[in-house]
Amino acid sequence: MTVINTDFHKGIHILADLWECNPEKLSFIEEVKPVLKKAVSEGKLTILQDYFFQFKPVGVTGVYVLGQSHISIHTWPEKNFASIDIFTCGPPEQAIKAFEVLCRELQPKRIEKKFLERMDEGNKICSVKTKNVLIIKNK
Amino acid sequence: MTVINTDFHKGIHILADLWECNPEKLSFIEEVKPVLKKAVSEGKLTILQDYFFQFKPVGVTGVYVLGQSHISIHTWPEKNFASIDIFTCGPPEQAIKAFEVLCRELQPKRIEKKFLERMDEGNKICSVKTKNVLIIKNK
Repeated sequence: MTVINTDFHKGIHILADLWECNPEKLSFIEEVKPVLKKAVSEGKLTILQDYFFQFKPVGVTGVYVLGQSHISIHTWPEKNFASIDIFTCGPPEQAIKAFEVLCRELQPKRIEKKFLERMDEGNKICSVKTKNVLIIKNK
Repeated sequence: MTVINTDFHKGIHILADLWECNPEKLSFIEEVKPVLKKAVSEGKLTILQDYFFQFKPVGVTGVYVLGQSHISIHTWPEKNFASIDIFTCGPPEQAIKAFEVLCRELQPKRIEKKFLERMDEGNKICSVKTKNVLIIKNK
Protein backbone atom coordinates (compact mmCIF):
# COMPACT_ATOMS: atom_id res chain seq x y z
CA MET A 1 0.00 0.00 0.00
CA THR A 2 1.31 3.46 -0.85
CA VAL A 3 0.47 6.06 1.74
CA ILE A 4 1.45 9.63 1.14
CA ASN A 5 3.12 11.28 4.07
CA THR A 6 0.54 13.63 5.52
CA ASP A 7 1.26 17.19 6.50
CA PHE A 8 2.99 17.50 9.82
CA HIS A 9 0.65 18.63 12.55
CA LYS A 10 -0.15 17.94 16.14
CA GLY A 11 -1.12 14.44 17.17
CA ILE A 12 -2.83 12.95 20.17
CA HIS A 13 -1.70 10.04 22.29
CA ILE A 14 -4.21 8.38 24.57
CA LEU A 15 -2.65 6.11 27.18
CA ALA A 16 -4.97 4.15 29.40
CA ASP A 17 -4.73 1.43 31.99
CA LEU A 18 -8.03 -0.42 32.24
CA TRP A 19 -8.77 -2.26 35.48
CA GLU A 20 -11.42 -4.80 36.35
CA CYS A 21 -12.26 -5.46 32.71
CA ASN A 22 -14.65 -8.10 31.47
CA PRO A 23 -12.55 -11.26 32.00
CA GLU A 24 -13.98 -12.87 28.89
CA LYS A 25 -12.28 -10.31 26.63
CA LEU A 26 -8.62 -10.58 27.66
CA SER A 27 -7.20 -14.09 27.53
CA PHE A 28 -6.92 -15.14 23.89
CA ILE A 29 -6.33 -13.56 20.52
CA GLU A 30 -9.79 -14.57 19.34
CA GLU A 31 -11.26 -12.45 22.13
CA VAL A 32 -8.90 -9.47 21.94
CA LYS A 33 -8.47 -9.04 18.19
CA PRO A 34 -12.15 -8.32 17.41
CA VAL A 35 -12.19 -5.67 20.12
CA LEU A 36 -9.13 -3.85 18.81
CA LYS A 37 -10.32 -4.22 15.25
CA LYS A 38 -13.67 -2.69 16.14
CA ALA A 39 -11.91 0.28 17.75
CA VAL A 40 -9.82 0.83 14.62
CA SER A 41 -12.85 0.44 12.37
CA GLU A 42 -15.18 2.74 14.29
CA GLY A 43 -12.35 5.26 14.66
CA LYS A 44 -12.03 5.21 10.85
CA LEU A 45 -8.30 4.59 11.14
CA THR A 46 -6.18 3.26 8.28
CA ILE A 47 -4.69 -0.18 8.91
CA LEU A 48 -1.21 -0.81 7.51
CA GLN A 49 -0.47 -3.98 9.45
CA ASP A 50 -1.66 -5.93 12.44
CA TYR A 51 0.15 -8.31 14.74
CA PHE A 52 -1.16 -10.33 17.67
CA PHE A 53 0.83 -12.49 20.02
CA GLN A 54 -0.52 -15.15 22.39
CA PHE A 55 1.23 -15.48 25.74
CA LYS A 56 1.00 -18.78 27.59
CA PRO A 57 -1.18 -19.71 29.32
CA VAL A 58 -3.13 -16.48 28.78
CA GLY A 59 -2.47 -12.88 27.79
CA VAL A 60 -2.30 -11.08 24.47
CA THR A 61 -0.29 -8.34 22.87
CA GLY A 62 -1.92 -6.73 19.84
CA VAL A 63 -0.75 -3.89 17.63
CA TYR A 64 -2.28 -2.22 14.61
CA VAL A 65 0.22 -0.09 12.75
CA LEU A 66 -1.84 2.72 11.27
CA GLY A 67 -1.45 5.31 8.58
CA GLN A 68 -2.05 7.70 11.48
CA SER A 69 0.56 6.05 13.81
CA HIS A 70 -0.43 3.05 15.99
CA ILE A 71 -2.82 1.47 18.46
CA SER A 72 -1.81 -1.27 20.89
CA ILE A 73 -3.14 -3.45 23.67
CA HIS A 74 -1.38 -5.59 26.25
CA THR A 75 -3.57 -7.78 28.48
CA TRP A 76 -3.01 -9.51 31.83
CA PRO A 77 -6.15 -11.60 32.26
CA GLU A 78 -5.07 -12.79 35.70
CA LYS A 79 -5.55 -9.19 36.83
CA ASN A 80 -8.49 -8.40 34.55
CA PHE A 81 -6.21 -5.70 33.22
CA ALA A 82 -5.46 -4.17 29.84
CA SER A 83 -3.02 -1.43 28.95
CA ILE A 84 -3.87 0.48 25.77
CA ASP A 85 -2.24 3.16 23.63
CA ILE A 86 -3.78 5.09 20.79
CA PHE A 87 -1.44 7.47 18.99
CA THR A 88 -2.80 9.31 15.96
CA CYS A 89 -1.79 12.31 13.92
CA GLY A 90 -4.28 14.97 13.07
CA PRO A 91 -7.64 15.71 14.63
CA PRO A 92 -8.20 13.84 17.91
CA GLU A 93 -11.72 12.62 17.18
CA GLN A 94 -10.61 9.33 15.64
CA ALA A 95 -8.42 8.40 18.60
CA ILE A 96 -11.12 9.37 21.07
CA LYS A 97 -13.68 7.27 19.22
CA ALA A 98 -11.33 4.27 19.24
CA PHE A 99 -10.77 4.77 22.96
CA GLU A 100 -14.50 4.88 23.64
CA VAL A 101 -14.97 1.64 21.73
CA LEU A 102 -12.24 -0.10 23.74
CA CYS A 103 -13.85 1.01 27.00
CA ARG A 104 -17.28 -0.04 25.83
CA GLU A 105 -16.05 -3.47 24.80
CA LEU A 106 -13.69 -4.24 27.66
CA GLN A 107 -16.02 -2.81 30.31
CA PRO A 108 -13.41 -1.70 32.84
CA LYS A 109 -14.66 -0.62 36.25
CA ARG A 110 -11.66 1.65 36.69
CA ILE A 111 -9.80 3.60 34.04
CA GLU A 112 -6.69 5.68 34.34
CA LYS A 113 -6.11 7.67 31.21
CA LYS A 114 -3.96 10.44 29.89
CA PHE A 115 -4.44 12.55 26.79
CA LEU A 116 -1.16 13.87 25.52
CA GLU A 117 -0.59 16.29 22.69
CA ARG A 118 2.38 15.28 20.57
CA MET A 119 4.22 16.80 17.64
CA ASP A 120 3.44 20.37 18.49
CA GLU A 121 4.16 22.57 15.50
CA GLY A 122 5.84 25.26 17.62
CA ASN A 123 9.53 25.56 16.85
CA LYS A 124 10.63 26.50 20.33
CA ILE A 125 8.01 25.03 22.60
CA CYS A 126 7.98 21.26 22.81
CA SER A 127 4.90 19.24 22.46
CA VAL A 128 3.95 16.75 25.10
CA LYS A 129 1.35 18.35 27.32
CA THR A 130 -1.01 16.61 29.64
CA LYS A 131 -4.48 17.72 28.71
CA ASN A 132 -6.51 15.64 31.12
CA VAL A 133 -6.01 13.04 33.81
CA LEU A 134 -9.12 11.45 35.17
CA ILE A 135 -10.15 8.41 37.08
CA ILE A 136 -13.52 7.18 35.96
CA LYS A 137 -15.57 4.93 38.14
CA ASN A 138 -18.06 3.02 36.07
CA LYS A 139 -19.46 1.26 39.09
CA MET B 1 7.81 -18.56 19.81
CA THR B 2 6.27 -19.44 23.14
CA VAL B 3 6.58 -16.74 25.74
CA ILE B 4 5.31 -17.36 29.22
CA ASN B 5 3.22 -14.56 30.63
CA THR B 6 5.41 -12.81 33.16
CA ASP B 7 4.25 -11.83 36.60
CA PHE B 8 2.20 -8.70 36.65
CA HIS B 9 4.16 -5.73 37.92
CA LYS B 10 4.68 -2.09 37.19
CA GLY B 11 5.87 -1.05 33.78
CA ILE B 12 7.45 2.06 32.35
CA HIS B 13 6.41 4.01 29.28
CA ILE B 14 8.83 6.49 27.79
CA LEU B 15 7.29 8.89 25.31
CA ALA B 16 9.55 11.29 23.52
CA ASP B 17 9.33 13.78 20.70
CA LEU B 18 12.76 14.31 19.16
CA TRP B 19 13.34 17.57 17.30
CA GLU B 20 16.14 18.63 15.00
CA CYS B 21 17.36 15.07 14.52
CA ASN B 22 20.12 14.02 12.17
CA PRO B 23 18.30 14.28 8.81
CA GLU B 24 20.17 11.26 7.44
CA LYS B 25 18.46 8.91 9.89
CA LEU B 26 14.77 9.56 9.25
CA SER B 27 13.71 9.22 5.63
CA PHE B 28 13.87 5.56 4.67
CA ILE B 29 13.45 2.17 6.28
CA GLU B 30 17.09 1.32 5.63
CA GLU B 31 18.07 4.29 7.79
CA VAL B 32 15.48 3.92 10.54
CA LYS B 33 15.37 0.17 11.05
CA PRO B 34 19.01 -0.24 12.15
CA VAL B 35 18.53 2.53 14.70
CA LEU B 36 15.45 0.97 16.27
CA LYS B 37 17.01 -2.49 16.12
CA LYS B 38 20.09 -1.23 17.93
CA ALA B 39 17.91 0.26 20.66
CA VAL B 40 16.09 -3.04 21.11
CA SER B 41 19.32 -4.99 21.07
CA GLU B 42 21.23 -2.81 23.53
CA GLY B 43 18.17 -2.67 25.77
CA LYS B 44 18.19 -6.48 25.78
CA LEU B 45 14.54 -6.56 24.82
CA THR B 46 12.83 -9.65 23.40
CA ILE B 47 11.63 -9.25 19.81
CA LEU B 48 8.39 -10.99 18.89
CA GLN B 49 7.78 -9.20 15.60
CA ASP B 50 8.87 -6.15 13.69
CA TYR B 51 7.07 -4.08 11.08
CA PHE B 52 8.29 -1.09 9.11
CA PHE B 53 6.30 1.02 6.69
CA GLN B 54 7.68 3.44 4.10
CA PHE B 55 5.65 6.58 3.50
CA LYS B 56 6.02 8.38 0.18
CA PRO B 57 8.13 10.28 -0.60
CA VAL B 58 9.79 10.01 2.82
CA GLY B 59 8.89 9.06 6.38
CA VAL B 60 8.85 5.78 8.26
CA THR B 61 6.75 4.04 10.85
CA GLY B 62 8.48 1.22 12.69
CA VAL B 63 7.27 -1.03 15.47
CA TYR B 64 8.90 -3.85 17.37
CA VAL B 65 6.40 -5.90 19.31
CA LEU B 66 8.30 -7.10 22.36
CA GLY B 67 7.91 -9.78 24.97
CA GLN B 68 8.00 -6.77 27.33
CA SER B 69 5.36 -4.75 25.36
CA HIS B 70 6.43 -2.54 22.41
CA ILE B 71 8.73 0.12 20.98
CA SER B 72 7.76 2.38 18.08
CA ILE B 73 9.03 5.23 15.95
CA HIS B 74 7.24 7.57 13.57
CA THR B 75 9.40 9.96 11.54
CA TRP B 76 8.71 13.20 9.67
CA PRO B 77 11.98 13.90 7.86
CA GLU B 78 10.69 17.19 6.48
CA LYS B 79 10.70 18.43 10.07
CA ASN B 80 13.77 16.45 11.20
CA PHE B 81 11.36 14.99 13.71
CA ALA B 82 10.79 11.57 15.26
CA SER B 83 8.20 10.51 17.77
CA ILE B 84 9.17 7.48 19.86
CA ASP B 85 7.49 5.24 22.44
CA ILE B 86 9.09 2.60 24.59
CA PHE B 87 6.73 0.63 26.80
CA THR B 88 8.17 -2.20 28.84
CA CYS B 89 7.07 -4.27 31.81
CA GLY B 90 9.37 -4.84 34.72
CA PRO B 91 12.47 -2.93 35.71
CA PRO B 92 12.89 0.33 33.81
CA GLU B 93 16.58 -0.06 32.95
CA GLN B 94 15.94 -1.77 29.62
CA ALA B 95 13.59 0.95 28.40
CA ILE B 96 15.92 3.69 29.55
CA LYS B 97 18.83 2.05 27.76
CA ALA B 98 16.81 1.79 24.54
CA PHE B 99 15.85 5.44 24.87
CA GLU B 100 19.46 6.49 25.32
CA VAL B 101 20.44 4.56 22.19
CA LEU B 102 17.71 6.26 20.15
CA CYS B 103 18.86 9.68 21.30
CA ARG B 104 22.50 8.83 20.63
CA GLU B 105 21.71 7.61 17.12
CA LEU B 106 19.16 10.21 16.04
CA GLN B 107 21.07 13.11 17.60
CA PRO B 108 18.12 15.40 18.37
CA LYS B 109 18.95 18.93 19.46
CA ARG B 110 15.73 19.13 21.43
CA ILE B 111 13.94 16.35 23.28
CA GLU B 112 10.62 16.41 25.03
CA LYS B 113 10.16 13.27 27.06
CA LYS B 114 7.87 11.80 29.65
CA PHE B 115 8.45 8.80 31.88
CA LEU B 116 5.19 7.25 32.93
CA GLU B 117 4.66 4.44 35.38
CA ARG B 118 2.02 2.03 34.18
CA MET B 119 0.30 -1.01 35.58
CA ASP B 120 0.60 0.01 39.18
CA GLU B 121 -0.19 -2.95 41.38
CA GLY B 122 -2.25 -0.90 43.82
CA ASN B 123 -5.87 -1.89 43.86
CA LYS B 124 -7.28 1.53 44.57
CA ILE B 125 -4.71 3.92 43.21
CA CYS B 126 -4.37 3.95 39.47
CA SER B 127 -1.09 3.77 37.74
CA VAL B 128 -0.14 6.43 35.24
CA LYS B 129 2.04 8.94 37.00
CA THR B 130 4.31 11.48 35.41
CA LYS B 131 7.74 10.97 36.89
CA ASN B 132 9.69 13.48 34.90
CA VAL B 133 9.20 16.02 32.16
CA LEU B 134 12.28 17.70 30.82
CA ILE B 135 13.41 19.66 27.85
CA ILE B 136 16.99 18.86 27.01
CA LYS B 137 19.05 21.18 24.90
CA ASN B 138 21.92 19.35 23.33
CA LYS B 139 23.11 22.44 21.54
